[in-house]
Amino acid sequence: MSGKQLVSTLEADGRLIVELREETLPEPKGHEVLIRVEAAPINPSDLALLFGPADLDNADYAPGRIVAPMPERAVRAMQGRLGQAMPVGNEGAGTVIAAGEVAQGLIGKRVAAVAGGMYAQYRIVDARACLVLPEGASAEQGAAAFVNPLTALSFVEAMRREGHKALVHTAAASNLGQMLARICKAEGIPLVNVVRSEAQVALLRGQGAEHVVNSSAPDFEVDLQDAIAATGATLGFDAVGGGKLAGQILHAMEQVASRGAAYSRYGSNVFKKVYIYGALDMGPTIVNRTFGFGWAIAGFLLTPFLQSIGEEAAERLRQRVRDELTTTFASSYKARVTLEQALTREAALAFNARATGSKYLIVPHG
Amino acid sequence: MSGKQLVSTLEADGRLIVELREETLPEPKGHEVLIRVEAAPINPSDLALLFGPADLDNADYAPGRIVAPMPERAVRAMQGRLGQAMPVGNEGAGTVIAAGEVAQGLIGKRVAAVAGGMYAQYRIVDARACLVLPEGASAEQGAAAFVNPLTALSFVEAMRREGHKALVHTAAASNLGQMLARICKAEGIPLVNVVRSEAQVALLRGQGAEHVVNSSAPDFEVDLQDAIAATGATLGFDAVGGGKLAGQILHAMEQVASRGAAYSRYGSNVFKKVYIYGALDMGPTIVNRTFGFGWAIAGFLLTPFLQSIGEEAAERLRQRVRDELTTTFASSYKARVTLEQALTREAALAFNARATGSKYLIVPHG
Repeated sequence: MSGKQLVSTLEADGRLIVELREETLPEPKGHEVLIRVEAAPINPSDLALLFGPADLDNADYAPGRIVAPMPERAVRAMQGRLGQAMPVGNEGAGTVIAAGEVAQGLIGKRVAAVAGGMYAQYRIVDARACLVLPEGASAEQGAAAFVNPLTALSFVEAMRREGHKALVHTAAASNLGQMLARICKAEGIPLVNVVRSEAQVALLRGQGAEHVVNSSAPDFEVDLQDAIAATGATLGFDAVGGGKLAGQILHAMEQVASRGAAYSRYGSNVFKKVYIYGALDMGPTIVNRTFGFGWAIAGFLLTPFLQSIGEEAAERLRQRVRDELTTTFASSYKARVTLEQALTREAALAFNARATGSKYLIVPHG
Repeated sequence: MSGKQLVSTLEADGRLIVELREETLPEPKGHEVLIRVEAAPINPSDLALLFGPADLDNADYAPGRIVAPMPERAVRAMQGRLGQAMPVGNEGAGTVIAAGEVAQGLIGKRVAAVAGGMYAQYRIVDARACLVLPEGASAEQGAAAFVNPLTALSFVEAMRREGHKALVHTAAASNLGQMLARICKAEGIPLVNVVRSEAQVALLRGQGAEHVVNSSAPDFEVDLQDAIAATGATLGFDAVGGGKLAGQILHAMEQVASRGAAYSRYGSNVFKKVYIYGALDMGPTIVNRTFGFGWAIAGFLLTPFLQSIGEEAAERLRQRVRDELTTTFASSYKARVTLEQALTREAALAFNARATGSKYLIVPHG
């Protein structure tokens, strides 16, 4: 079996080469299955490996090949990947067309997998990293069954484990944000949705969200404080990363916590935390420490979190994704592209903009 | 009994007034003791309340009174203290000259106390917030028995509780830094001392410190990585707060953690943390997130930490301070000033500079 595969290679001279290559796949063995990949989403977490901070505006585009300059500083930071052709695509869905001895039962089934290298026509993965889709589910419905659904469920899981009662979420109009809003609504968890435009406010309100705050509105800081006061949120999840947003959330939480309290130069006794789980803004995080000393900003990454809660709890989350794949965890896409189309200037610039509502889906067999 | 007391008042019109006033103290009752304050250090943590970001260069200085303009933004952030005459001085030492019924046994004893308002000639405090100094210890030796010693011990305590094996400390030539170095040496804990000048490097090396890195040297980043590699430090305590230092420490830890590992765009699996416990630089913390997602930056404050570890553990730390007050926990001062002298232009500008090695001691009875 052979097919096209998308790889990203950073050369020592600073050229990032993203291209298609033909690969021949061996027979699957043991627990392995050979998947004919039918759909794979382009998540923000894929873009870091696919393009990183490369300059796509000044890249050369040929059919099936992009050559883009990478800033020198970024090349130094990514020494570990120099010269390696790295397969891309965290997750996707397709049909099992061959399997090793132990996994024969999966042949013919449609599965989702989170295994890396899913921007390919065929992929061999460990059956244990697969999720069998519900009867009748399409590959498109199952393509994003892992990263966003499990991340949204993990936010709620982390909130409970760390003793918080409500959440703030940024980039809240994203597919992930809409899932989180549905989960919180179903479970009665107060949620402050931070979005970046009035159109996104309208979108989330139309879906029944109660607290939606527009970070580009002039009254953002006041609105954020009011929403935090109404919900009691002391934990935030921030997809933006760069800029002042994480600090603004902590500041608003502190302002709410110290309302009516005696002045203390050390701040309130309320512990406030923001997890940064994305990098929609790759610039530095700028934190004006106006919220005392009871605070934390921390990175959040799905896989280590799932490992930290143990197999039983993680399986409970996966089962919920299976049960609600086409409702709570439904994703929507702006465009479907083949592997070749994904490497055109128009498509690459569009999905690399990381704009909410412009998620692309790769369909490797066209 | 009456005596002079230093108070700091922020007026709504933006004037910060720091002045001496005469206060009359009542008879101590119950658990209370009346202390004749003989020495009180000016710690960075006192400066936030005493002056904050007020403009001391353009202040009016009269005997026993400073009137300084406060930036408008800071006035807004400190609404909670407007118009209140706030006593200053976290800790100090002196002699008990009167006591309530339950605390009679302390009369005549020299004690240290962490009770606030210690920049005064007399102070009534709860006997349970006092530490009886060892026989023969001077007030100067006991004046700083709480904040720095317990903070240094808490760093080691937090390190063990959170599963780290070595530490990075910034502003490491401070009194606190020297204490921490002595504790770590005694306990065999590898410590990376980050200082800001070659003179401070020499000072710490002269005291036997093994790993000392100068943040103003051109090779700082390389030196820091080497020291972190040599010690295995994955936890830092940062007194600076503002600027890039906390992020640079995380970056160096990550570079060390990923040496020889396969490239991962999510960073290493090593969890790295920096606590910010001071604000020598009150500017924003600027974090270039070049260290994956396994990281945290968090505030650290002594009192909540001691509460979190429980009374028994906290008492163990306090007992150690008593036992080693004049050795491990010895402080040194650049100058001794009366309450009046502390409010002169020369003194105020000097100690407000928060420069390592320029710690002042207030001696309220001159």
